[in-house]
Amino acid sequence: MNIHRRLLGSILNNTISRSYGTRPPAKRSVHLMEEKKIKDFAIIESTLREGEQFANAFFDTNQKVQIAGMLNDFGVEYIELTSPAASKQSFEDCKAVASLKLNKSKILTHVRCHMDDAKLAVEAGVDGVDVVFGTSSYLRDFSHGKDISFIIKEAKKVVEYVKSEGKEVRFSSEDSFRSDLTDLLKIYSEIDNVGVDRVGIADTVGVAHPRQVYNLVKLVRQIVSCDIEFHGHNDTGCSIANSFAALEAGCTHIDTSVLGIGERNGITPLGGLIARMYTEDEELVKRKYNLKMLRDIENVVADCVSVTVPFNNYITGYSAFTHKAGIHAKAILNNPSTYEIMKPEDFGMTRFVHIAHRLTGWNAVKNRVEQLGLEMTDDQIKEATNKIKNLSDFKQQTIDDIDALLHQYHTAGANIRTANRA
Amino acid sequence: MNIHRRLLGSILNNTISRSYGTRPPAKRSVHLMEEKKIKDFAIIESTLREGEQFANAFFDTNQKVQIAGMLNDFGVEYIELTSPAASKQSFEDCKAVASLKLNKSKILTHVRCHMDDAKLAVEAGVDGVDVVFGTSSYLRDFSHGKDISFIIKEAKKVVEYVKSEGKEVRFSSEDSFRSDLTDLLKIYSEIDNVGVDRVGIADTVGVAHPRQVYNLVKLVRQIVSCDIEFHGHNDTGCSIANSFAALEAGCTHIDTSVLGIGERNGITPLGGLIARMYTEDEELVKRKYNLKMLRDIENVVADCVSVTVPFNNYITGYSAFTHKAGIHAKAILNNPSTYEIMKPEDFGMTRFVHIAHRLTGWNAVKNRVEQLGLEMTDDQIKEATNKIKNLSDFKQQTIDDIDALLHQYHTAGANIRTANRA
Repeated sequence: MNIHRRLLGSILNNTISRSYGTRPPAKRSVHLMEEKKIKDFAIIESTLREGEQFANAFFDTNQKVQIAGMLNDFGVEYIELTSPAASKQSFEDCKAVASLKLNKSKILTHVRCHMDDAKLAVEAGVDGVDVVFGTSSYLRDFSHGKDISFIIKEAKKVVEYVKSEGKEVRFSSEDSFRSDLTDLLKIYSEIDNVGVDRVGIADTVGVAHPRQVYNLVKLVRQIVSCDIEFHGHNDTGCSIANSFAALEAGCTHIDTSVLGIGERNGITPLGGLIARMYTEDEELVKRKYNLKMLRDIENVVADCVSVTVPFNNYITGYSAFTHKAGIHAKAILNNPSTYEIMKPEDFGMTRFVHIAHRLTGWNAVKNRVEQLGLEMTDDQIKEATNKIKNLSDFKQQTIDDIDALLHQYHTAGANIRTANRA
Repeated sequence: MNIHRRLLGSILNNTISRSYGTRPPAKRSVHLMEEKKIKDFAIIESTLREGEQFANAFFDTNQKVQIAGMLNDFGVEYIELTSPAASKQSFEDCKAVASLKLNKSKILTHVRCHMDDAKLAVEAGVDGVDVVFGTSSYLRDFSHGKDISFIIKEAKKVVEYVKSEGKEVRFSSEDSFRSDLTDLLKIYSEIDNVGVDRVGIADTVGVAHPRQVYNLVKLVRQIVSCDIEFHGHNDTGCSIANSFAALEAGCTHIDTSVLGIGERNGITPLGGLIARMYTEDEELVKRKYNLKMLRDIENVVADCVSVTVPFNNYITGYSAFTHKAGIHAKAILNNPSTYEIMKPEDFGMTRFVHIAHRLTGWNAVKNRVEQLGLEMTDDQIKEATNKIKNLSDFKQQTIDDIDALLHQYHTAGANIRTANRA
């Protein structure tokens, strides 16, 4: 075992945990799950900006006001709105939502790095302006040094203007992971110097994976003193893990949208980020957010954009707390944390142990017998379990089918018990 | 700029790229995306095992044969089936699928680490046996050293038996990330010594994040000489990123299921892993798999288990290649790779540039004018774009609405052109 201890010690000390001393622990149990790096984070909820870029999305003013109100009650720190420069109504909607004076969420709008757009944003009365520079191809076309001075000059002007109006301001690049790294860092550093509140790192095309995100955020963290925001698309399924890696590396703000709606297949979903962060620090997440509202918010947004909540949605998907295989069901009945890392009741959800199938086990069936208040011996339950498996081999069973079968045993037993007493 | 260069150099050399020499590059553009760590990987497709544990799933024999055939044609390296010990029909189904003698996919079944189950598996005629030990609580209850000798003894017996029958064998722990690490490594090491083909690392409860997965796989990679398999649940949205991190750390086999179906909200989805790996190494993925089959396979499985393919599904979700915001649409029309990291045609999909909304821009509208073969000046197109924005502010527009509007300009123009000719 010593070789494992030594290996473990050297690797754990380097890469996993900072809580150990110079020697690996001698007596206590060693787990990979111990370390918590993230003290706090803020959500920039972008359903009303990025989400409006989802194929189906069209939010009218009333819907925007309703969704903003619900997100505020949920407790997100920021709500981001479509640019007031996009259309006349978009400007009016910014004003309408900003005038709500929500008690928990600050209102942001997301504009191009132009003075015209920045002025419209200020005029709309939002609390802060999220400025984004240009397009990815624009950034990629830089040769070293060329055009950077132009970007920096423009950005400084806009940032200084927004600050002078007493608003929060963020400066973000686009497609940060395919941009030239030295240029990117130079821009962030210069913008930080003029007092920007946040710089934004964006995986606009969903190409990055967590190690890359961690490394880039870590670099930026060493170069700027302001906050750092991460915006990640989900084309290759990494948006939640990327957001988490960003936070681990020192990022402070994460962009989300309800159900992840956005351009193409969208960005980090609010519910998914909540699941990830709850698992990391349950108390922090429960203190910050009204978790029982999540399902209602998702249903309202799904209705607005005419989609069905995915069957496998985080937390609120209809099978998220369903347990099926016999071995899982047995353990979950003994101790839910064996196969559940989130408590369904924290989200207003309920656990379901599914027994009407051929993978079931007798412990799960016994639990159902007890739920139904039936009297059956363990041998009878085992026999009934085999019958369920056999029936399910030929046709999908319902819980009603199974309950009827269990009632038969109980009734037969009751007849015997009555006969014995007579 | 020098401070950035130096910082970059020191950090890149340590953590990002191994392709640089001792000094950071002086002249060429620096990107975070350059490094490729993964040379190859194999998919263990578990729709017919893990997927059968999805709440809705009931696959009859014909469906199993159909799905196995399609997965083989797609090119997955392995197909994993429900334990022959689960029910009589499960045994028959193992035999039926094994007897297909598929030309690309080996057939595995997944059994508890018991001789009885292992014998049934061998009898069913599969190519390999995936053995899993006990339950998470069982593993967690270990105190150091206690009971490990029992596990190892049992596992060795089973592994040696399966090998003696000329079959592939894998040994996996369960809930690996909440197990005692020294115990886990000792077990893997001992099982490796008796010639197991693969050891399996399982995030059974979906609690792990990529850095933990990377670190654990890296540890195991240094302790065993056999292959390493990763199985990850998606409760906190990290299954794809975790699978990728596992591969980066030296893992060789990844478990997937079609649409990710499995216990609770499931595991790494086949399509999501494909999206991630295509982005990492397009040529490798195109060489290994018949990508155009992905959508059909997903539709067949979705039908079998009565779910709708999620609106935001990787690659095949209906908006995965839809571009909406004006700035995105303009860039994508100039060069698709600006906002697309996967070519839709590689998957038999098509790109859609959405223009019937208030976020549209005149370049996208111009593209539609050209598609329709209409004659309009740039000024007219800009005017039409403003009309589209105004109309969309009040009511969601359809592409038919927009086409009609554009035709009006064309017809009006044609009348003028005709009048001028007359």
